[in-house]
Amino acid sequence: MSQFWSPIVHTLTPYVPGEQPKVTNLIKLNTNENPFGPSPKVLAALEAEANDSLRLYPDPNASELKNAIADYYDVKVEQVFVGNGSDEVLAHTFMGLLKQHKPLLFPDISYSFYPVYCGLYEIESELIPLTESFEIKLGDYHKPNGGIIFPNPNAPTGRVLPLSEIEALLRSNTESVIVVDEAYIDFGGETAIALIDKYPNLLVIQTLSKSRSLAGLRVGFAVGHADLIDGLERIKNSFNSYPLDRFAIRGAVAALEDKDYFKQCCETIIQSRETVSQALTELGFEVLPSAANFVFAKHNKQEAEDIAAKLREKSIIVRHFKQAKIKDFLRITIGTKAECESLIGALTDIIKG
Amino acid sequence: MSQFWSPIVHTLTPYVPGEQPKVTNLIKLNTNENPFGPSPKVLAALEAEANDSLRLYPDPNASELKNAIADYYDVKVEQVFVGNGSDEVLAHTFMGLLKQHKPLLFPDISYSFYPVYCGLYEIESELIPLTESFEIKLGDYHKPNGGIIFPNPNAPTGRVLPLSEIEALLRSNTESVIVVDEAYIDFGGETAIALIDKYPNLLVIQTLSKSRSLAGLRVGFAVGHADLIDGLERIKNSFNSYPLDRFAIRGAVAALEDKDYFKQCCETIIQSRETVSQALTELGFEVLPSAANFVFAKHNKQEAEDIAAKLREKSIIVRHFKQAKIKDFLRITIGTKAECESLIGALTDIIKG
Repeated sequence: MSQFWSPIVHTLTPYVPGEQPKVTNLIKLNTNENPFGPSPKVLAALEAEANDSLRLYPDPNASELKNAIADYYDVKVEQVFVGNGSDEVLAHTFMGLLKQHKPLLFPDISYSFYPVYCGLYEIESELIPLTESFEIKLGDYHKPNGGIIFPNPNAPTGRVLPLSEIEALLRSNTESVIVVDEAYIDFGGETAIALIDKYPNLLVIQTLSKSRSLAGLRVGFAVGHADLIDGLERIKNSFNSYPLDRFAIRGAVAALEDKDYFKQCCETIIQSRETVSQALTELGFEVLPSAANFVFAKHNKQEAEDIAAKLREKSIIVRHFKQAKIKDFLRITIGTKAECESLIGALTDIIKG
Repeated sequence: MSQFWSPIVHTLTPYVPGEQPKVTNLIKLNTNENPFGPSPKVLAALEAEANDSLRLYPDPNASELKNAIADYYDVKVEQVFVGNGSDEVLAHTFMGLLKQHKPLLFPDISYSFYPVYCGLYEIESELIPLTESFEIKLGDYHKPNGGIIFPNPNAPTGRVLPLSEIEALLRSNTESVIVVDEAYIDFGGETAIALIDKYPNLLVIQTLSKSRSLAGLRVGFAVGHADLIDGLERIKNSFNSYPLDRFAIRGAVAALEDKDYFKQCCETIIQSRETVSQALTELGFEVLPSAANFVFAKHNKQEAEDIAAKLREKSIIVRHFKQAKIKDFLRITIGTKAECESLIGALTDIIKG
């Protein structure tokens, strides 16, 4: 507390990211990072970027990256916005598109940064409960609103919605922006980018932190109607001219270009997810069907918080959320094959031991 | 314009950064970049950072960098805040410390992003005119205010204030935050960081974009009382958990460590600035005394905009601002010795030809 803070600061409840431990001998299954490093072509491109040009500002418009995204998704470059991780893209979206005179709707169990943005920008919100089976029911979003946002697949549940349901919502909700936050889409969902030409109020947000193995580089983007993108650009250009540094731009472009590596990583993770889900089920866990690079699972006897603590003793970290509705669940990132085996071995000891 | 924008977006006048031309054969003296690349030790550290760890999020707290800054300036780590360029640090400062019930004061001729932040965060401001000789007169800031911000040295004038004058203002203005924006301090000014333990309302902001040759890496920081820093952290953690990527953290640390290289670059630029100022004076320019890596100069006969256009034809770009009070001036970045010679050669042709 300080007399020198702006009044808003006293009211904030900042987001708490998953732990980034400083010790290195841990199996880190708590922040949904990719178990595989970036493509070797990405590493080579990044290495080459360590040169004297760093004395110069990056392209404030990151055109090379916007073009690469436009090519990849077959959209126009003016339909693409880029930012310093999808968190920055989300922040600008909340400020620039979702701060309206009616409440913003989002799921009660979802990315826990959404309510934080609402606090920062003083946006009124209404939480829409997930169903008892932890599904987003888009029929419940047919009510007066200043915007709708949800992750697809949802986090931390991992459950995915089919594109047909999202399109049904878009057909009926035409007066406010609908944001589909697709951080995990490449692990089993179908992107809504295909719908942006049909629905001028649709914004799709993605990140290179998960499926592209670049959490350490901080690149996210949004795709939508050029007017929505223009609104985001106006916010961005009133905030920071150059949010993406030279490495971020170059590394992201190289990552989008290496489609084979990307495809292979995603497929391996999807396979491991099925193996882990099966093994967890056999150990007495209820595992929600996941289309993400993590599973959300609840044991039929032991408490989630206890299991997490015991895993930690065995140098494995997973994520536990204290919210009442999901306090019985653990969110477990899918690691390498060896990490998954260590996880299942440790859990077998904990559950059966 | 779009019905889907938040109301604030319609009111914004975004910042326009200096041109980053895509052609490479230009002598670029328009955005105050360092003519020398980063230290070879920085480049080596950055190259080594292109590895599999990029799959992992960076340290959200960037502790390694905060420690390096704390060591360098002999302050406590809790007195240090870091961000994605000093523009992001400034944005959070405007939102978190300078949005008050009384107007924010800043010079009428100054960093043109300040009024943009005021627009973004709906901060009332009052512009305090520079003197006729383009000096900031801190005596004029003794009036009711919700905060005071000014660059030292000022941009685009290059004029510097002695620390004694800043301390006099701090002694009399104790109820609101005073921000000293020291983007160019290493080229001839004295940092106010030495005063932070005495004045809990002082925040000093610096960047690695200019004197550290890292405009392409996007790193800025603020130093001040731990309570001010805490306010900034609360904003940052409500906006983006990881604004600094792994390259930015590592490169910035390496840059702070190589003190010899830094000192040598700054000295060379200061020497060239004196040479350029002298040559411009001989060509009929009035050159304001500069403590920055640029000069601000006005010709006694030819119009600044014309000179800039003619320089552009000769592949040299400098910055011209259209604001009435400074429309007769050019802001010229100090380049390498060879670039400075080309500049003076071209200007000699233009003025005398």
